[in-house]
Amino acid sequence: MAGNTFGTLFRVTTFGESHGPALGAIVDGCPPGLKLSEADLQADLDRRRPGTSRHTTQRREPDQVRILSGVFEGETTGTPIGLLIENVDQRSKDYSKIAEQFRPGHADYSYRQKYGVRDYRGGGRSSARETAMRVAAGAIAKKWLSETHGVTVRGHLSQLGPIVLNDHCFDWAAVGENPFFWPCADQVAELETFMDDLRRSGDSVGAKVTVRAEGCPPGWGEPVFDRLDADIAHALMGINAVKGVEIGDGFDCVAARGTEFRDEITPEGFLSNHAGGVLGGISSGQDIVAHLALKPTSSIRLPGRSVDKQGEATEVVTTGRHDPCVGIRATPIAEAMLALTLMDHALRQRGQCGDLATDTPVIPAGDGSTPGR
Amino acid sequence: MAGNTFGTLFRVTTFGESHGPALGAIVDGCPPGLKLSEADLQADLDRRRPGTSRHTTQRREPDQVRILSGVFEGETTGTPIGLLIENVDQRSKDYSKIAEQFRPGHADYSYRQKYGVRDYRGGGRSSARETAMRVAAGAIAKKWLSETHGVTVRGHLSQLGPIVLNDHCFDWAAVGENPFFWPCADQVAELETFMDDLRRSGDSVGAKVTVRAEGCPPGWGEPVFDRLDADIAHALMGINAVKGVEIGDGFDCVAARGTEFRDEITPEGFLSNHAGGVLGGISSGQDIVAHLALKPTSSIRLPGRSVDKQGEATEVVTTGRHDPCVGIRATPIAEAMLALTLMDHALRQRGQCGDLATDTPVIPAGDGSTPGR
Amino acid sequence: MAGNTFGTLFRVTTFGESHGPALGAIVDGCPPGLKLSEADLQADLDRRRPGTSRHTTQRREPDQVRILSGVFEGETTGTPIGLLIENVDQRSKDYSKIAEQFRPGHADYSYRQKYGVRDYRGGGRSSARETAMRVAAGAIAKKWLSETHGVTVRGHLSQLGPIVLNDHCFDWAAVGENPFFWPCADQVAELETFMDDLRRSGDSVGAKVTVRAEGCPPGWGEPVFDRLDADIAHALMGINAVKGVEIGDGFDCVAARGTEFRDEITPEGFLSNHAGGVLGGISSGQDIVAHLALKPTSSIRLPGRSVDKQGEATEVVTTGRHDPCVGIRATPIAEAMLALTLMDHALRQRGQCGDLATDTPVIPAGDGSTPGR
Amino acid sequence: MAGNTFGTLFRVTTFGESHGPALGAIVDGCPPGLKLSEADLQADLDRRRPGTSRHTTQRREPDQVRILSGVFEGETTGTPIGLLIENVDQRSKDYSKIAEQFRPGHADYSYRQKYGVRDYRGGGRSSARETAMRVAAGAIAKKWLSETHGVTVRGHLSQLGPIVLNDHCFDWAAVGENPFFWPCADQVAELETFMDDLRRSGDSVGAKVTVRAEGCPPGWGEPVFDRLDADIAHALMGINAVKGVEIGDGFDCVAARGTEFRDEITPEGFLSNHAGGVLGGISSGQDIVAHLALKPTSSIRLPGRSVDKQGEATEVVTTGRHDPCVGIRATPIAEAMLALTLMDHALRQRGQCGDLATDTPVIPAGDGSTPGR
Repeated sequence: MAGNTFGTLFRVTTFGESHGPALGAIVDGCPPGLKLSEADLQADLDRRRPGTSRHTTQRREPDQVRILSGVFEGETTGTPIGLLIENVDQRSKDYSKIAEQFRPGHADYSYRQKYGVRDYRGGGRSSARETAMRVAAGAIAKKWLSETHGVTVRGHLSQLGPIVLNDHCFDWAAVGENPFFWPCADQVAELETFMDDLRRSGDSVGAKVTVRAEGCPPGWGEPVFDRLDADIAHALMGINAVKGVEIGDGFDCVAARGTEFRDEITPEGFLSNHAGGVLGGISSGQDIVAHLALKPTSSIRLPGRSVDKQGEATEVVTTGRHDPCVGIRATPIAEAMLALTLMDHALRQRGQCGDLATDTPVIPAGDGSTPGR
Repeated sequence: MAGNTFGTLFRVTTFGESHGPALGAIVDGCPPGLKLSEADLQADLDRRRPGTSRHTTQRREPDQVRILSGVFEGETTGTPIGLLIENVDQRSKDYSKIAEQFRPGHADYSYRQKYGVRDYRGGGRSSARETAMRVAAGAIAKKWLSETHGVTVRGHLSQLGPIVLNDHCFDWAAVGENPFFWPCADQVAELETFMDDLRRSGDSVGAKVTVRAEGCPPGWGEPVFDRLDADIAHALMGINAVKGVEIGDGFDCVAARGTEFRDEITPEGFLSNHAGGVLGGISSGQDIVAHLALKPTSSIRLPGRSVDKQGEATEVVTTGRHDPCVGIRATPIAEAMLALTLMDHALRQRGQCGDLATDTPVIPAGDGSTPGR
Repeated sequence: MAGNTFGTLFRVTTFGESHGPALGAIVDGCPPGLKLSEADLQADLDRRRPGTSRHTTQRREPDQVRILSGVFEGETTGTPIGLLIENVDQRSKDYSKIAEQFRPGHADYSYRQKYGVRDYRGGGRSSARETAMRVAAGAIAKKWLSETHGVTVRGHLSQLGPIVLNDHCFDWAAVGENPFFWPCADQVAELETFMDDLRRSGDSVGAKVTVRAEGCPPGWGEPVFDRLDADIAHALMGINAVKGVEIGDGFDCVAARGTEFRDEITPEGFLSNHAGGVLGGISSGQDIVAHLALKPTSSIRLPGRSVDKQGEATEVVTTGRHDPCVGIRATPIAEAMLALTLMDHALRQRGQCGDLATDTPVIPAGDGSTPGR
Repeated sequence: MAGNTFGTLFRVTTFGESHGPALGAIVDGCPPGLKLSEADLQADLDRRRPGTSRHTTQRREPDQVRILSGVFEGETTGTPIGLLIENVDQRSKDYSKIAEQFRPGHADYSYRQKYGVRDYRGGGRSSARETAMRVAAGAIAKKWLSETHGVTVRGHLSQLGPIVLNDHCFDWAAVGENPFFWPCADQVAELETFMDDLRRSGDSVGAKVTVRAEGCPPGWGEPVFDRLDADIAHALMGINAVKGVEIGDGFDCVAARGTEFRDEITPEGFLSNHAGGVLGGISSGQDIVAHLALKPTSSIRLPGRSVDKQGEATEVVTTGRHDPCVGIRATPIAEAMLALTLMDHALRQRGQCGDLATDTPVIPAGDGSTPGR
């Protein structure tokens, strides 16, 4: 497969560069009969949209999505859904320097060596702008998961640079009420001060995002290569700037003992959820929990050493409009990727096994599934 | 795609259960003209093989692989390579209890809910025994990568339960000389004591493995969903018991600043390798570095609470021959999965871009690529 | 895979309904460095365009294609190429009857049973309008094949209803000079009379199209399921209204003897080309020749018996603007599908085998490759 | 995808050369809970088996298949089914001449140019022996189609060289009672005489096979590239020696009129089946009918002109054990390929659309579906 398609049965293919005329996607394999309008996609697009607070890039893009096919009289028809977002604010500027240099931490050099040519305007295809189409497609998956299976996919920031989420004040309702997708209102002032200082310093910082799917039935996934957790890792590591992915307790499992880590079960439900909702590559019915680490933005105005296309030493200073922490706007993207993965596996499960009814009782998700790691 | 195939151009499909008659694989898409014999595969199979030290499972399997097709007069022909390993030591025992119970931390329950039926003998398809075929296939990829591109893929344990690798005594030569794939000879006595105590306690423990590919040219990978790092994450998270994957510095990037994390470049080479050899989803020519976290074995003889097929409370005690730390034998498996991913992307790159020659000088990997994180 | 993507390495995904706002495609996997402009695509689109003669549908669509991504400074960049054609002449009419009936010979009933819903306006997704995007994508493949390998892909009508091509007056130059893609100028008057009579009668007729690729190197294809001829058959049978596909002599092979059918070889070249340029699923270096049969248009104004959504008997009369012979405009579509197939296999061959240089001399295509069956 | 895998959700991957130690396959994606034993596969393997009459190759292969995984306690488990057939009668002979020559009509030259190397013993991978695994896998699909949907897949020879099936004496029961899979007992003597003469002459002849699926529900297939008929064409053209594929009336549609060809419908059912059971790429509920043309065997003992590896003129005489008409044994292979295609689309349909229940009545298949073209 070429690298711009995601999924097996529910398939999303995207195109578009940061400073080209438009971004687009084709969502193929969507079940028919799902009520769908542009407004359903716009809500999540607006959450990801640049320029909504002083803590993110000041590029102004309305990110207004159009549905060009696959929906008729308000319902999906089962044929491919064409999506389009026109780029509006591709501020024209002088790219001659960027064209010649390889910015450290960027895809400039690796694209050059892969393709020989590159669209250097605003990062071209490597720009995070590409993720808008993932969010639009993910909104379809979220809606289908919710309406057909009662699954909720949502996420939040769980670390911003050195500031770690205080689990004790965890509140999903807080996430939508601050520009950081932060689930603890008490920490927001601290985050704002931190980000204001950071912006003034010209530097950038990393972040950690947590995403969760609640209500997944057991049985989604595959046993070997395409394990549900492997496909989630593929989905999340495929987001720009991500350097690590954990399922459930993730790296904390290394120092753990089997007696504590295996999630014991009673007739009332699982007693813990260290596994993050996946056993043997297949959903267990507990909450699916994943964490991702996003590196600090490489585009900063503090000078850095690099080389140019001739291999000569040069100094790079990145001006322009950039997120000082790309992780902040990553929450809706991570939600979208998780939703796309789950919906694809839901269809795969239905394809291979049908609506299999076992006589084994479903084990309740149990108390182990409390948010906040 | 069904879940038992890995790769796009270089494709590995496996079959086999822990206690069935045999394990097998078909390796499709291998370039013709590679010299290949069963001995090439056996070396890595022997490294993964059970029963070689008191610290791993005592199941005795020779894991002797046969090549059934695709090789003629000592060379690959470009047609599919059929591989077969007969199971020898499927010790017969009473499975009636396992058939009825869902062992905590195991795939028993999730398989049951997915398929309705399951081969419960020794975990069936969910057994780590399945990974033998990955190692065999990975050995083909390793050989091709080495002979055609000079790429070396190798790995080591970097944490065993609470014991962290001491970077200062890092030595690749040590890895093959202890049963732990540990690259520091000075720590081996400590590991042995720890494992002896652990085994006596009946408990199990997690581990961290690090894998590295040295000598990769820049330009392998894809920009969006199938980024090289995303596919590596898919490959490594698809190994039994893995709960986390990091590329380069991984989760350490969260608290890092852009000024320190972006790997600066001079004409003499990169100055660091926080990114782990991948920029924008495409290899940069630096060492590709990944870490994986493996959970403690769930199969332990200390009793745990669970339910049976009727949903009634039961107590589970897992006897039999199990690795008290599944992470130990995971090193060759992780190497194999990394090699399969790289070879697939090497062929994909050649397919799309040919043997593209840019006039841009290759940046040396630089000092940043020192092993030991 | 979902059904709206074609190809493995060079991949085309399309969307769009006959009467929706637009048609679109994403062409993924295109090699970088190919000079490409909208004009390159427009030429073939204009050949397929409706409304250019009285013998085809009178729908007036400019079919103006826009390239939205993947091309920078006049060259492909290796990232996905987004294509868009706005629908202009979706004449509004009363669809209430079509919505309720299943037109015989149409996809109305099968779509209904597959999806439960359908976009009945102008046939929706089942309209041949969808093929415009194939032609646009095929033009990219044609250009690449020509520039990198000197391959020419072209086609012509070889039978129109009862009128069979006279091989003796075969002339490629004639094809572009009549509205029938007919390679014999002497027969054009006969075709015009036939079509005028047919149009007046209200009936429709089938056609046969022949496509050829000249200059293909030997070695493209796969030995088993994805044989080059199997993939060509998939490509051509996937065009609306096609009911049969032949490679080389096709069904004439049934009554042939091995002594005559096997294409003998001399150092000067092959002595015949009954096989149509494919041996064992792999190109032989001879011209690749395929024929396809297109059924008569089902949309005719002569009444036909059918049932409605309730299963009640009804009479169907299809008014509106339809091609009395859909086969006529199929030539550029068939060329496009052949080109897409060949380019995909060219990249697959390069991916697996690289630019393999055997020391075996290339056998000349020989005299056997004269057009006109 | 590499070329040795067939299918999207129900996937068959094969390996094996004519004179290697074994043939094998992995069947991935099979639904769990299907009762399956080796005997279920053996019946069709025995129909395809060489050496059962004087009219086919005298190679003696028991073709005894072993199931190595994926079946537990007599039922499929949903995990991959490993299949193996050992080669027994690879008569050792002197291959030095075949190694140097390119036999006309064979894959020798095209393999050489593709791979640089080839296993020349008995045709290696290009031997029709590879189709044994397709038949084994197809038997699984046939059984599932029959048990879950009441679909019957069967076929027969409909032309042998110049001898055309007499429709008037069509009888399915006859097919199994003669070595030609011929559905008219009255013509068998004529066939035997023809074949005896042919064998004595040293020449070979082509054949036409017809396959049919009865009982398919409407709604299987895809609208665009992966139309059901396109995938059937891919499946059948992917069989060795096939040069043409027709759906329903096939090439007869060229000279037909729309009024006669569109299959009219009444509440009692379709009035004809010119379309062969597929409308708009999706099954209509009528019998699915396909015809395939197989070329005469190229391996004949009458000398033919060719070149050797150095491009020098040579004369080729093929001795050994060959079918004088490869089409005869092709019937079970064609059935298998049709069954694999249908089962894959059945799972795809279930994956995307679930067990959709429309309120539209199912149109009966009607009288139009009489066998014998």
